[in-house]
Amino acid sequence: MSTPILSGLAFIGSRRGAKGGAAFQAMNPALAQPLEPIFHTSSLAEVDTAAHLAAQAAPLLASFSGQKKAQLLRKVAQNIEATTAALAARAQLETALPEARCLGEIGRTMGQLKLFADLLEKGEWVDARIETAQPERKPAPKPDHRSMCRPLGPVAVFCASNFPFAYSVAGGDTAAALAAGCPVVVVAHTAHAGTAELMASLVVAAVQELGFPEGTFSMVMGDGRVVGQHLAKHPALRAIGFTGSRAGGKALMDTAAARPVPIPVYAEMSSVNPVILLEEALQSRGEAMVAGLFASCTLGVGQFCTQPGIILLVRSQAAQDFVEKLAASFRSASEGVMLTAGIYQNYQRELAARRQQAGVTVVQSAQASGSAGRVLPALLTVAAPTFLAQPALQAELFGPASLVVWCEDLAQLKQVVRSLEGSLTATLHGTAEEIAQHSELLAQLETLAGRVILNGYPTGVEVSHAIVHGGPYPSLSDGRTTSVGSNAIYRFTRLVCYQSFVDAALPAELQNANPLKITRLVNGQRSSEPVS
Amino acid sequence: MSTPILSGLAFIGSRRGAKGGAAFQAMNPALAQPLEPIFHTSSLAEVDTAAHLAAQAAPLLASFSGQKKAQLLRKVAQNIEATTAALAARAQLETALPEARCLGEIGRTMGQLKLFADLLEKGEWVDARIETAQPERKPAPKPDHRSMCRPLGPVAVFCASNFPFAYSVAGGDTAAALAAGCPVVVVAHTAHAGTAELMASLVVAAVQELGFPEGTFSMVMGDGRVVGQHLAKHPALRAIGFTGSRAGGKALMDTAAARPVPIPVYAEMSSVNPVILLEEALQSRGEAMVAGLFASCTLGVGQFCTQPGIILLVRSQAAQDFVEKLAASFRSASEGVMLTAGIYQNYQRELAARRQQAGVTVVQSAQASGSAGRVLPALLTVAAPTFLAQPALQAELFGPASLVVWCEDLAQLKQVVRSLEGSLTATLHGTAEEIAQHSELLAQLETLAGRVILNGYPTGVEVSHAIVHGGPYPSLSDGRTTSVGSNAIYRFTRLVCYQSFVDAALPAELQNANPLKITRLVNGQRSSEPVS
Repeated sequence: MSTPILSGLAFIGSRRGAKGGAAFQAMNPALAQPLEPIFHTSSLAEVDTAAHLAAQAAPLLASFSGQKKAQLLRKVAQNIEATTAALAARAQLETALPEARCLGEIGRTMGQLKLFADLLEKGEWVDARIETAQPERKPAPKPDHRSMCRPLGPVAVFCASNFPFAYSVAGGDTAAALAAGCPVVVVAHTAHAGTAELMASLVVAAVQELGFPEGTFSMVMGDGRVVGQHLAKHPALRAIGFTGSRAGGKALMDTAAARPVPIPVYAEMSSVNPVILLEEALQSRGEAMVAGLFASCTLGVGQFCTQPGIILLVRSQAAQDFVEKLAASFRSASEGVMLTAGIYQNYQRELAARRQQAGVTVVQSAQASGSAGRVLPALLTVAAPTFLAQPALQAELFGPASLVVWCEDLAQLKQVVRSLEGSLTATLHGTAEEIAQHSELLAQLETLAGRVILNGYPTGVEVSHAIVHGGPYPSLSDGRTTSVGSNAIYRFTRLVCYQSFVDAALPAELQNANPLKITRLVNGQRSSEPVS
Repeated sequence: MSTPILSGLAFIGSRRGAKGGAAFQAMNPALAQPLEPIFHTSSLAEVDTAAHLAAQAAPLLASFSGQKKAQLLRKVAQNIEATTAALAARAQLETALPEARCLGEIGRTMGQLKLFADLLEKGEWVDARIETAQPERKPAPKPDHRSMCRPLGPVAVFCASNFPFAYSVAGGDTAAALAAGCPVVVVAHTAHAGTAELMASLVVAAVQELGFPEGTFSMVMGDGRVVGQHLAKHPALRAIGFTGSRAGGKALMDTAAARPVPIPVYAEMSSVNPVILLEEALQSRGEAMVAGLFASCTLGVGQFCTQPGIILLVRSQAAQDFVEKLAASFRSASEGVMLTAGIYQNYQRELAARRQQAGVTVVQSAQASGSAGRVLPALLTVAAPTFLAQPALQAELFGPASLVVWCEDLAQLKQVVRSLEGSLTATLHGTAEEIAQHSELLAQLETLAGRVILNGYPTGVEVSHAIVHGGPYPSLSDGRTTSVGSNAIYRFTRLVCYQSFVDAALPAELQNANPLKITRLVNGQRSSEPVS
């Protein structure tokens, strides 16, 4: 397909948004210059229309087979593949992310869509359960009950600044929601509005080509605090997916809880991703760990939700040597361009505040160019008592900064771990012996994070069946779930039970003949056989 | 085991609560007389201690095997079985429920405990997923990832008034939470405090006999708005289970959302359980439907969350005949004793308010005795336009009252269905032909309720793998889930992923050798084989 031309307009179902609303432009963060075209904020009436169309589309979408929904996801992936060069070019301009990263993320986005398409084609994800009737049971007959996961209804998806593809318009939340059978209304991120418009045009083209109902997908534009909050309050909405700041996520949680009908919010907000380095591991492979940890701290200018923000060590010679070498890496690190002026300003402000904090030291290169948007990685160090006394030090500092917390002994280290808020990841480096000795610490890390890592680094999130990208609040608003991987589909489903249904009125997954040939739980036993 | 003697004291771990707090007594609702002994409200310090003990117990409980947790559940069931007569006797006094109902509910409660024990012994419920490492993958190696459901942490369980066993101290929420590996702090219902104390003593005995940590189970006593709210705010809590009034459930939702760390609330609150009767079904088996529906409306003095509160019909001769016969049943119905003075007063007040409503007619027997606590079933009728104009008519009226809503045609009936709030159940009666013709209506009912019933009655909730006892707000605060059946365990779990773990540090469910011989999702394929 040919590359669409940017118009700066939203997508309200199959129609384009109007031009009346407040104008804005995406910025080139590397040059601090606005990019063409001018974008037009969606009116609140348009937001309402998008939600209304989604509500209208919901019953039809809920009736579609897994095969049909898979076709849509595959078509979106095909459209993305055919537009890769244009997408990557626009995203580079809007985010200052390098081409390889943009191409990699586009590949990942297509991979996510295909993962869910595979899941739908296999069909077993719905957790079909059948309890056959026992009309002769005493004291009362047992009716026939059949249950499965069904779509929750229209979903609002708020795009992330730091993943212009994988957590954006056709990213993980949208793919999971569509796979579940839920219409989606996306709130584009203003920082990469052009990438968003391109991507939305590909989704809308797929929706139209495959004859899906118009409200299957819309994308509104503008300030999330206005346009997005209005959408979050719409009665048609059934769930919200969000990736962004803690303040933004919390505001949506509050809005969702205050609705006449509260709805779930899956907000990925804030994570410090503690990394604990034990002494024998430092002795045996400290050199490699310096390189590995430095790379993880600074990858993508530190703008990953799994960036290791807090590094915990017990004082030892090996630990001292390690931190000195790590500091040397930070001291010689070069500048990177941050995604947006807002993220840049926040990083500089938060770093300056920590620099003022008594007991905190900061190591950075002296080579700052002073150019707008460019920052230097920073390694901060602090003693555990100061860290414990200053809750502000425990907050995420989004960017290429990590804080070493020096502990006097293991008991103090465990105390620091106990003081931490929930994280997406928690990492432990130790020898086999150390790991065997520290089962209690490992159990503690498990309660802290959705993914516990041994002898690795938290950045780099696989898209798979076993990944968990989630964790206790505030890393995710709903710490039971994951926002990456095939398990993410369950965020947008609800359980429905059909009692004494005639076969023809049941979803195919629950029909006697088992036409989809899926494994089901029949009277407590897994079976792919028909039932009678 | 011998029948414990009631002391009126709470259980704070293995110790008994103190006597200092405000005194209260359970009432015999049939006689409006207080029952011995005097109960003592838990102090807020005791509530804190219970929560603290639960937090202390959590890591150990989380490390226990399914087999070990199953032993606890089976031991509780055994203790209940050995105490059945005393439990039933006390519950009859406190609730005015007949002996057969109490015995049946005790059996159901043991059945629930055994269902979860079976689930734990089979072990597959954890949804074990393994993605093996691909060290040679390009551009980056793929690490080993293994995920499963893990316990959420300490759970507060608020007991229901209308199920002194099955939704109370050792009821569904407690069984599901313990099965998941979560310590439980129960807030006893003051109306059946004696039954609660007996039951708690059986749970504590099982905890002690099997050497479970002390904080595995506690039961606090007193006003839920004070004691319960204090517990709900405790930082150690990770989830809340509640069955009761809409006001009580909403207050807990608000408290949970306002915590520094918000936690999920599973509150079962309010449900009108609409029943739609189509014309041909009325023609062909109207007589049987009168008996079936009347029994469902008045069973247990209408004090079931699945009581059919709203009956929808399109005007026809068959419908007219049906409602006349149904009214005759209500007119000759006898009195029943309600569970508590509060429920009695609420029923009388709400019924009186509806009686004042222009356009509402009320059919009841003239035989009211006027004795305290005793009420007569009531059949109300109203025309759809009045119903649509008066949101107060759509609220649950807890007790043996049902409202017939007369619709002019199917379009108006659908409009009424659209106006309804979420329910636990939605029922359609129709011939095979009618059901085939009304697929759109069925789809509408599916979005309204967690269980859709064809040609049956909503009361009577099976405890099974396929049951869904849940539905959109306000029937359940979290309409994605179920509070009955084996699926209820997932409310108290979170997903955890282990990256690059050594085998010995993994839970047994995820170890290479598959020692539990469970089916797992290995690299996307179901398998019960070991992995290497």
